[in-house]
Amino acid sequence: MPTLVIMRHGESQANRDNIFTGWSDVSLTDKGVEQAHTAGKVIAKSELQFDDVHTSFLKRAIITTNIVLDEIGQNFIPEHKSWRLNERHYGGLRGKNKLKVKEQVGAKQLKIWRRSFTVVPPLLNKRDEDSRYDRYGVKIPLGESLEMAQRRLIPYWVDEIAPRLLDGKNQLIVAHGSTLRALIKFLENISDADIPNVEVPNGKPIRYDFDQNLNIISKSFME
Amino acid sequence: MPTLVIMRHGESQANRDNIFTGWSDVSLTDKGVEQAHTAGKVIAKSELQFDDVHTSFLKRAIITTNIVLDEIGQNFIPEHKSWRLNERHYGGLRGKNKLKVKEQVGAKQLKIWRRSFTVVPPLLNKRDEDSRYDRYGVKIPLGESLEMAQRRLIPYWVDEIAPRLLDGKNQLIVAHGSTLRALIKFLENISDADIPNVEVPNGKPIRYDFDQNLNIISKSFME
Repeated sequence: MPTLVIMRHGESQANRDNIFTGWSDVSLTDKGVEQAHTAGKVIAKSELQFDDVHTSFLKRAIITTNIVLDEIGQNFIPEHKSWRLNERHYGGLRGKNKLKVKEQVGAKQLKIWRRSFTVVPPLLNKRDEDSRYDRYGVKIPLGESLEMAQRRLIPYWVDEIAPRLLDGKNQLIVAHGSTLRALIKFLENISDADIPNVEVPNGKPIRYDFDQNLNIISKSFME
Repeated sequence: MPTLVIMRHGESQANRDNIFTGWSDVSLTDKGVEQAHTAGKVIAKSELQFDDVHTSFLKRAIITTNIVLDEIGQNFIPEHKSWRLNERHYGGLRGKNKLKVKEQVGAKQLKIWRRSFTVVPPLLNKRDEDSRYDRYGVKIPLGESLEMAQRRLIPYWVDEIAPRLLDGKNQLIVAHGSTLRALIKFLENISDADIPNVEVPNGKPIRYDFDQNLNIISKSFME
């Protein structure tokens, strides 16, 4: 029976400073590094042996991944990196302080931008250039709703993760708050109306055990 | 014109203690971590953009890889791990202090075991068990000459590295003293008689520039 563990990276500089980040490539804080070590120790207690780990192109997730693999003594497993696991692109909100945005647009609009499934943030006028995406022919979004992020995430689940779970191989995903919310929505069939209430804290691994048809048998926060 | 950079991991606990290691999975020392950061800074100065990095199943190489990728700001590139890049398996010498072996068998025999191309170390009686290899159907060696290590290394070069270089993609290899000696012997066509004089220091990146037919144009220690 296959097991999936998903977790959000440790606290980033932007988390600490309460700033919208998205595809900007910020580092972990010291606290974030510590959270990653703690998460690794928590996962180690489960004695789960993973066959693969999946992460994004962003270093806050990649560094968290490497710390976790070291803590669980599984540095050697294949580490797959994909832009499809990147955080939601926050468009024109990127780089802005959430409290300042709240002052400008009000708490209700901020919550919609942060938590709604379908609402698109203000879009950028100009596409960012970054060779790490250009080389794969990926057009960097001008901004994404959670739904848009889910649309580019799910092909990765279907092509790369679900088949491995169906083969009985335990999988670990280390990604981002919004992409994990999108994945949880998909896995648990959560409605658009309910998804605003789902939050994924930094560095807290969530375990799903599946039956052989990939139906969820149990879900738990690991501790 | 494609570029290859190869480097040995930073100092390991076994390097520090002057112990034969091979496939045993030892950590870096603090000095080794520092060497990895320094190597990363040296590579960063070249402004090379890599398309892939290749490393072994052993954490001294994997952790060195991750430190280097972070220093060069290229955490996101694909990281390929293969047992074929593992250190030479030292068989019955594994875990033994090199000075003690020298006292027992003399400096000449020690040098032959360490540096000759064809001489096989004393073999283990019993094969180690380690699920990280079993899952790939890899039989852990009972001991390897440098030639035996080269024989399982070269298919990786031929299948995974050379085709990417021929596509014009810069490649980085972070591996081990003996496997890099074996690779250098292959790349530079060094004779069995001369290979004992080739040493690969910890954490010193070596750069090869090739023409489009993979002939070496230049080789240099990066600094």
